[in-house]
Amino acid sequence: MQWLRYLQDGKVMTGVLEQQTVHEHGGALFETFKPTGNTVAADGLQWLPPCMPGKIIGLWNNFRAAAEKNGWSAPTEPLYFMKSPGAAAGHQQAIAVPSSYPGRVVFEGELVLVMGTTARQVTVQNAPQHIFGYTCGNDVTALELIHRDASFPQWTRAKSFDGFAAFGPVIDTDFDAENGHLRTLVDGRERQNYAFSDMFFSPAQIVSHLSHDMTLEPGDLIYCGTSLGVLPMKAGATVEVLIDGIGTLSNRYG
Amino acid sequence: MQWLRYLQDGKVMTGVLEQQTVHEHGGALFETFKPTGNTVAADGLQWLPPCMPGKIIGLWNNFRAAAEKNGWSAPTEPLYFMKSPGAAAGHQQAIAVPSSYPGRVVFEGELVLVMGTTARQVTVQNAPQHIFGYTCGNDVTALELIHRDASFPQWTRAKSFDGFAAFGPVIDTDFDAENGHLRTLVDGRERQNYAFSDMFFSPAQIVSHLSHDMTLEPGDLIYCGTSLGVLPMKAGATVEVLIDGIGTLSNRYG
Repeated sequence: MQWLRYLQDGKVMTGVLEQQTVHEHGGALFETFKPTGNTVAADGLQWLPPCMPGKIIGLWNNFRAAAEKNGWSAPTEPLYFMKSPGAAAGHQQAIAVPSSYPGRVVFEGELVLVMGTTARQVTVQNAPQHIFGYTCGNDVTALELIHRDASFPQWTRAKSFDGFAAFGPVIDTDFDAENGHLRTLVDGRERQNYAFSDMFFSPAQIVSHLSHDMTLEPGDLIYCGTSLGVLPMKAGATVEVLIDGIGTLSNRYG
Repeated sequence: MQWLRYLQDGKVMTGVLEQQTVHEHGGALFETFKPTGNTVAADGLQWLPPCMPGKIIGLWNNFRAAAEKNGWSAPTEPLYFMKSPGAAAGHQQAIAVPSSYPGRVVFEGELVLVMGTTARQVTVQNAPQHIFGYTCGNDVTALELIHRDASFPQWTRAKSFDGFAAFGPVIDTDFDAENGHLRTLVDGRERQNYAFSDMFFSPAQIVSHLSHDMTLEPGDLIYCGTSLGVLPMKAGATVEVLIDGIGTLSNRYG
């Protein structure tokens, strides 16, 4: 199933996408949810982030190809930062240019996993049952902020401007992550194209590892890291993150 | 006023502390809240974190005395990390020893500011009106995790284990932060004693700076950084963070 949220007459609605039709549902996502019988066309929809994450975690250095090119060692455990949950942006929502930072801002097309149930110290084998589904993500980053202060790397800040956690358009609950691949297009031109099989840590391994550090909750997002092809965005550019089997996340920058 | 939350017959209650009496209130904190007329004694209360933070931010290197001793340069802007909101712990709630990390875990007694209204790009002058109040905090840190991987500092992870964001017992809405001071006691022995006037960035400056990076929301916490005296905790130790005018946050470690 493909879950989404959208605005209708100013109200936040939840639905399931089938072909090009959205089937409105009532209830609470991650709990009990039932179709109301109402439908609306996906075309012209006012998309919202498909859930409201309590926390957003992002991985660094999780792809072999990127590590090799950048001269990074293979990580012995998932290396991660946190993004502000307020940075969430949905499909077709614009990502604003930060007013307080004049430097380069890069896109990072990524697979994002969405937690479905509370996970605390779970094994790799049991981890998949805690994952609700997968979505496309753009882990937007103010690149020059990270190391602007020599004494303290500013990962959280560089990744937490409003709109810097784009994800959507839907959460797919049946996606086969291990065999998937991703492409990122900027104004229609392909800039990233990589397979998820190149990850150092699979989604199940990530969830297991992280659940030993902290309790993961329904709606939490984990951005699984990016691979080669990251580039700065010019104001006015449209960035699309495509994952076959999920869909296309499209956001205008600026 | 001093706001708190507590458990009563398994229900989450909100109240105002006056002397040793809790006046139960109904409504939504940060919105409209009215006394119900019921009261309960503070003695024997089952305390909860006084709010449920949407995000928790912590400052690094915000005290002159600590910077001087450690040889850190004065920061030109607030340097901060994010802690998991799930790390929240209230007064008298135990902080568990991480099962997945065998190294040193330190206490950091801190002033914590609690946001009251949405703040986006606010000036230093206007910042105070967005601050709901202040509380005592223990920014617990798994010290050896931060630099365990030479390629990536793990600030978020080291500070996000469940229980590592202790705060309380109450949020004081009238506290004069600029003139306050803090003491931390471990099993009754004083380990930290410093004045908030030694901060590089005052609460109003912090809120103004951060609100230019990201939108701050009601209930968000900002740990204002710690000063000298940080030490590892032994399992079984009780750490108290005392701020005159707010109260004493007490947590057992392990």
